[in-house]
Amino acid sequence: MTDPATAYEELRAAGLKLDLTRGKPSSQQLDLAAGLLDQPGAGQHLAADGTDTRNYGGGQGLPELREIFAPFLQVPTPQLIAANNSSLELMHDTLVHALLSPLPGAPTRWVDAGRVAFIAPVPGYDRHYGVCERLGIDLVTVGMTEDGPDMDEVERLVAGDASIKGIWCVPKYSNPDGAVYSDEVVRRLASMPTAAPDFRIMWDNAYAVHHLTSDEVEIADVLALAAEAGNPDRPFVFGSTSKITLAGAGVAFLGGSQANVDWWLKLTSKKSIGPDKVNHLRHARFLRDGAGLRAHMSAHRELIAPKFAMVERLLLEAFSDTPGVSWTTPKGGYFVSLTVPDGLASEVVRLAGEAGIALTPAGATHPYGKDPQDAVIRLAPTLPPLDEIERAMAGVVTCLQLALARR
Amino acid sequence: MTDPATAYEELRAAGLKLDLTRGKPSSQQLDLAAGLLDQPGAGQHLAADGTDTRNYGGGQGLPELREIFAPFLQVPTPQLIAANNSSLELMHDTLVHALLSPLPGAPTRWVDAGRVAFIAPVPGYDRHYGVCERLGIDLVTVGMTEDGPDMDEVERLVAGDASIKGIWCVPKYSNPDGAVYSDEVVRRLASMPTAAPDFRIMWDNAYAVHHLTSDEVEIADVLALAAEAGNPDRPFVFGSTSKITLAGAGVAFLGGSQANVDWWLKLTSKKSIGPDKVNHLRHARFLRDGAGLRAHMSAHRELIAPKFAMVERLLLEAFSDTPGVSWTTPKGGYFVSLTVPDGLASEVVRLAGEAGIALTPAGATHPYGKDPQDAVIRLAPTLPPLDEIERAMAGVVTCLQLALARR
Repeated sequence: MTDPATAYEELRAAGLKLDLTRGKPSSQQLDLAAGLLDQPGAGQHLAADGTDTRNYGGGQGLPELREIFAPFLQVPTPQLIAANNSSLELMHDTLVHALLSPLPGAPTRWVDAGRVAFIAPVPGYDRHYGVCERLGIDLVTVGMTEDGPDMDEVERLVAGDASIKGIWCVPKYSNPDGAVYSDEVVRRLASMPTAAPDFRIMWDNAYAVHHLTSDEVEIADVLALAAEAGNPDRPFVFGSTSKITLAGAGVAFLGGSQANVDWWLKLTSKKSIGPDKVNHLRHARFLRDGAGLRAHMSAHRELIAPKFAMVERLLLEAFSDTPGVSWTTPKGGYFVSLTVPDGLASEVVRLAGEAGIALTPAGATHPYGKDPQDAVIRLAPTLPPLDEIERAMAGVVTCLQLALARR
Repeated sequence: MTDPATAYEELRAAGLKLDLTRGKPSSQQLDLAAGLLDQPGAGQHLAADGTDTRNYGGGQGLPELREIFAPFLQVPTPQLIAANNSSLELMHDTLVHALLSPLPGAPTRWVDAGRVAFIAPVPGYDRHYGVCERLGIDLVTVGMTEDGPDMDEVERLVAGDASIKGIWCVPKYSNPDGAVYSDEVVRRLASMPTAAPDFRIMWDNAYAVHHLTSDEVEIADVLALAAEAGNPDRPFVFGSTSKITLAGAGVAFLGGSQANVDWWLKLTSKKSIGPDKVNHLRHARFLRDGAGLRAHMSAHRELIAPKFAMVERLLLEAFSDTPGVSWTTPKGGYFVSLTVPDGLASEVVRLAGEAGIALTPAGATHPYGKDPQDAVIRLAPTLPPLDEIERAMAGVVTCLQLALARR
């Protein structure tokens, strides 16, 4: 075996230009939705109930599209909103609404509440942190387990501090570690006592149907559990078709209790005369129904599961016996989380970058871009072709081997 | 001639169900954009520069679409943003950004500024008022003239009160009175001294290309005049294709100084990974270029100019010699503003409503829904077919005659 330093010099000399940074679908995945680009077709603009989708109105979005997604997002159709193309925007705007108008159950609007803080399970999704940082909402980190956030710590924090107004959750195939919240974690989130009467769960079910194996994982119904526990207004549920149909031209969803939905629609009616219903109609016609959605996601799986398998294979070949090196083998979602010995993550990312392999900056999985252990590297294998994944991951292996050798 | 009371009883007995309330395009107008519903077509998703419009990214919107609209909105292409489907949303979100992050030149974010107020020229657009009311921004009214707002009053207010942070303007074919701002008014707005260093003009150029006559009215270039006067960051320019292509599925635009645009894009990048670029591509392909846009608007004009002519004819036949009754004859836009003697507007709207003719509530053209003179009725003749316009306006004439007779 070549020694790590020589292997790295050879890697650099190869002049690669590869990218494992972002969770973007590949063009082959986007091609699966090519049929959407002809929809709805001239003259085919009427919805099932006769609504002219071309005109203004319909703030809640097209019913036939909401019906398709309601069971997958575990929200009753009347409590589900279909919006424009970005669920991140719905999350951001929900927090803006809460800052500027009291939420159901809130004593004040949040800009008048003094400090507002959210719990951020780590590792987590950098754009959730970005929304809070932009809006002046503090982030309090809590560790993730295989079953979801460390609930003892979450319960302790929310019970004792009324300035903690919410928690970010990616409950299924979480970003980046692929964790699936256990039923018990969901039940505890839905029922735990909170000092803040207006506490909210930001339930970003981004990967609800994004399975990588035949084990199509189900999670508990957070809305139902919260209602049963007497906290019906606690969860806001989010989802989108960005990684189902077209990343930039999909449809985002928001669901919650009737009170939350009414509050949201009333405030949103002041800023828009309705979402793009033609795009809703396109999606309803293209996906047809739940079975159509499932079949479409199977086609995605066929394209991306081999990429995840390639990442797994190369890591396993190199590091199956290496202390301190571990990685996730997610059953769905868009990421593999690679854990390296403390203090090495940013060094590996730096070495890879100098060899032409772009990795997500170490720390991006933590608030303010700072991973105190400097141990987590997020790998995003969906976008590049399989042969590039292979070359990039072989390079990552070399970089990690060098970093380990130099330690 | 039948006496007004008898005529009104006959009108009620006819059991009409007609609607002149909202400025919505008719389905015939929407049909003009039928070609958009087949766009871009499977496999036709690449932009001129090779961008895959289906994927994430491109926060400023597709260049080829911005190029088409830049000259019409009088914004250089690099300073123009193409977004999703609602310019109202862009206005709302711009004010939200200003509330939560300091604008270029602002000493503080507006939520920390104490009182924030905007000037609302009256009569004006109810949804502008709604955005301010929802965000806790006070409205200070100033009268409209044929040439735009009463500038003596505007200059006096903004010079003396630093809490006045902006003004709403619909500079061409204004809603509802069809006024066109004179070059002198634009120059004064762009150059007037303001006590607030972060004063902004909300330049809602909603009807930039929406001509009703062959006199395609031009207005002065507010961005250029503001820059010349040393106030480059003062105007935010807005526009949309809602009344060009599809009301609910068009594209909205925002333009301004480079500093304003950079500020807006940076904040917006925290809430979305980009607008729907596929819809941008649809619009660019369908409209082709400036000449295509002009030709498309001529087709609109052919459909709606006869409706405006019908309103004009019936009002002229009935009230050409009636003191206190006057109306606008706009050269573009979506509305006719009918002025009746003080105190009669809500009575006419009530009488019409009881006869099955829905009119916009009297007062909607003023903040908080209160027209102190109760004298302005906004008529929106684009949506109903011509024969319904004729019957509805004949009914409005009857109602006004009765209200005048009863006075």
